[in-house]
Amino acid sequence: MTSRPLLLNADMGESFGPWVMGMDHEVMPHVDLANVACGFHASDPDVIRMTVRLAARHGVRVGAHPAYPDMVGFGRRSLACSAQEVENLVLYQLGALAGVCRAEGLEVSYVKPHGALYNDMARDPEIMGAVMRAILAFDSSLPLMTMATRDTSAVAELAADHGVTLWFEAFADRAYDGAGRLVSRREPGAVHHDPEVIVDQALRIASGKPLVASDGSELILAADTLCVHGDNPESIAAVKAIREALDRLGAME
Amino acid sequence: MTSRPLLLNADMGESFGPWVMGMDHEVMPHVDLANVACGFHASDPDVIRMTVRLAARHGVRVGAHPAYPDMVGFGRRSLACSAQEVENLVLYQLGALAGVCRAEGLEVSYVKPHGALYNDMARDPEIMGAVMRAILAFDSSLPLMTMATRDTSAVAELAADHGVTLWFEAFADRAYDGAGRLVSRREPGAVHHDPEVIVDQALRIASGKPLVASDGSELILAADTLCVHGDNPESIAAVKAIREALDRLGAME
Amino acid sequence: MTSRPLLLNADMGESFGPWVMGMDHEVMPHVDLANVACGFHASDPDVIRMTVRLAARHGVRVGAHPAYPDMVGFGRRSLACSAQEVENLVLYQLGALAGVCRAEGLEVSYVKPHGALYNDMARDPEIMGAVMRAILAFDSSLPLMTMATRDTSAVAELAADHGVTLWFEAFADRAYDGAGRLVSRREPGAVHHDPEVIVDQALRIASGKPLVASDGSELILAADTLCVHGDNPESIAAVKAIREALDRLGAME
Amino acid sequence: MTSRPLLLNADMGESFGPWVMGMDHEVMPHVDLANVACGFHASDPDVIRMTVRLAARHGVRVGAHPAYPDMVGFGRRSLACSAQEVENLVLYQLGALAGVCRAEGLEVSYVKPHGALYNDMARDPEIMGAVMRAILAFDSSLPLMTMATRDTSAVAELAADHGVTLWFEAFADRAYDGAGRLVSRREPGAVHHDPEVIVDQALRIASGKPLVASDGSELILAADTLCVHGDNPESIAAVKAIREALDRLGAME
Repeated sequence: MTSRPLLLNADMGESFGPWVMGMDHEVMPHVDLANVACGFHASDPDVIRMTVRLAARHGVRVGAHPAYPDMVGFGRRSLACSAQEVENLVLYQLGALAGVCRAEGLEVSYVKPHGALYNDMARDPEIMGAVMRAILAFDSSLPLMTMATRDTSAVAELAADHGVTLWFEAFADRAYDGAGRLVSRREPGAVHHDPEVIVDQALRIASGKPLVASDGSELILAADTLCVHGDNPESIAAVKAIREALDRLGAME
Repeated sequence: MTSRPLLLNADMGESFGPWVMGMDHEVMPHVDLANVACGFHASDPDVIRMTVRLAARHGVRVGAHPAYPDMVGFGRRSLACSAQEVENLVLYQLGALAGVCRAEGLEVSYVKPHGALYNDMARDPEIMGAVMRAILAFDSSLPLMTMATRDTSAVAELAADHGVTLWFEAFADRAYDGAGRLVSRREPGAVHHDPEVIVDQALRIASGKPLVASDGSELILAADTLCVHGDNPESIAAVKAIREALDRLGAME
Repeated sequence: MTSRPLLLNADMGESFGPWVMGMDHEVMPHVDLANVACGFHASDPDVIRMTVRLAARHGVRVGAHPAYPDMVGFGRRSLACSAQEVENLVLYQLGALAGVCRAEGLEVSYVKPHGALYNDMARDPEIMGAVMRAILAFDSSLPLMTMATRDTSAVAELAADHGVTLWFEAFADRAYDGAGRLVSRREPGAVHHDPEVIVDQALRIASGKPLVASDGSELILAADTLCVHGDNPESIAAVKAIREALDRLGAME
Repeated sequence: MTSRPLLLNADMGESFGPWVMGMDHEVMPHVDLANVACGFHASDPDVIRMTVRLAARHGVRVGAHPAYPDMVGFGRRSLACSAQEVENLVLYQLGALAGVCRAEGLEVSYVKPHGALYNDMARDPEIMGAVMRAILAFDSSLPLMTMATRDTSAVAELAADHGVTLWFEAFADRAYDGAGRLVSRREPGAVHHDPEVIVDQALRIASGKPLVASDGSELILAADTLCVHGDNPESIAAVKAIREALDRLGAME
């Protein structure tokens, strides 16, 4: 995995009706993968159309970013859905995004569940299996993006059983605990703000070098992609700095 | 057109969450085309999944039945959308339905806008053009279903300009006025209840024979499909009677 | 509590847009309290208006039946809301119902949370407290309806701390476990179908006599109200039978 | 009317879930009336709560800003509702806002329909009557805010028939046509940007002096309130300038 370049992914298309969220135009030129909201936690048919068009213009691959149906909570609140409900709502959102993609000459390239659904599938194999069945039903070649942790054997086994490809994602601006999980934002030091620290962590992840976890242990994350943010000028600057550092790393290899 | 059999279409998948609408299981065995609600005026991912599965079991083709976003009004209230908004919301709904269809081994076979959107596109070429552009962007081979009237030259020309195939639909249980439009339900005699009258009108439409319009004139409707209903036992009985009559007609030809 | 009559309450106004649910016209004449959905899990402004008018006509008191915002899941799925979110969504729904009530000369008389919110508040004092704060802010005289169980001291204490009146509700058609909680519907014998058993359980609850819990122990439920259902002709018949039995009991006392 | 001070009103509480709209904290200190969105075109229970609290802190009166149910279109698209539907949806929204107001010790003080509903009621007496009936049912003392035009006799008569008080509103930053209606934003010169022009127009309206309409005629608008905006720093600056100018005018009188 270390021989492949580390792809940059960012959440996009999170505006809704008259409400604007994210600096999609600023971040799109610097990423490889756009996780596009599908209308259940954010976005609407017009926002999706414009976001997909922007991705097409920059040669960025579009991924489905499906969520629980909860606009007001932005998909961040767990909703006690059955596995069948999860399978169907992922299918619906995948299809909806794919429909709009066709109008811009693109296809959906991968799936990254959003917010509470992302977290719930990571801790509940029933939910993870439901997401995988939706992907298999729609297009079995689509990778599913999930968290890189210290030990990914359980999810890797589940994916192998289903015949689904996984893409593991890591974060350059977040501290990790000893299990390779993100330190809660409520803890001090959970989020890195120093650009040098962020770029250093991105380079370590890209080159397979260890991070130092919050318990002091060394942590190697095998990651395919790095999640970056386009929320504000600071995060855009961080994306550019990471992009340049990764490009230099790639040129050296 | 008269040499082709007249296809029977019915609105399906109009349940929503815990609320059941329509006797889909009763009507599905007798129709050719299922107009499946896409989640904007009715249906949800679970209802769509079950409806598509039912259609697959009976060899019935699935059509998208997109609508304005208005659950509480069931898509029956005009919403002043721009043409671009209509294009995008049709694309989104088409894709969503297509996504769920994939899980049941089906594809979307045609498009029939619902309710107020159906009526608005019939009177406004801007809206009709927007629906056509959505179809072209998604799959240019999909026919668009619209009302058969006395003179369909304007819509036929618009369709030819866009390169979209039209399917004209007629009604066996409704009276027509001299222009070949449905007599408003508020008028006496607008809806036929006598099964013999309904079957006779179906056979006339199927064989290209004239109806008598409400102004006494003869009206020939060139129709590809007949809209039938699965709301209650009476309408189910009418569907069966029409089906049998059309089958006998087909056997004779 | 045994000297007061046992009030009958039923969920009402659970239709939505074109979708009808419940036989409100059949059950309204036989109950004392109508739990009216407030538009978050069911109902809409028109349904609320008609339901409140029906209650007014029959002299039935209207209670707010607030829920998590989840139409498609009918408010039956837990949604991980904060206490502040719960407080505000209950306030909003209480106010909305009260607004429509004014047009029919009624006021909201009590609050009974619906579905997952009802269950969540019973097991989580944070949620219960949030509901109580909403009631206090709106009208501190409104009773809050919650489950009668064997030991209600904890919730009674919480209510006393907040200065909120509780109304305990019991069920005549459900089996109870030793803790005085409902036996899960997935267990055999969880739901009573025999009208004689149902009426007997209603009378026992009304007169403070013990039930036999599923573990064989005697269970006395101190209940202010009995939840009945207007879903179908069988449940309507049960409501009438309970009503008559309770009226006879009241006449004897 | 000229002897009363001209009140400043602004749309508030137009955020939704995670999406922020408007600089409510900046504009609240300078206005008299806050038109608070009620959850149908913008806002949610949490946003309403915070907005009402902010209004309470600044001694600003809260008005209901009800709209068609259309979040994605922000209530700006006409929806073909019946008069009964409009009456009920206004009642529902009025009540919901009033419910949250109670928690902050406030009451709803007036009603200003939003967007397409505001425009539709101005041109359709059926819709205007429905809004008035909702107000009467809720609290007949609440004024209804509507456009000041050259000739307001028709709406004044309708209001007198219903027994509803009207508050007429005018705009300092918009050009008027000869009928006293706003010049469409698509026309050149429709919106004033020069702060001096805006303040001058505000003072003319406040003191009953004529404006020059787009057809060159003199136009006197009898207005109770002036609509101002808190969208961006420029509009906030305009609000402050208008406030100061009106205060000087009041001190002189």
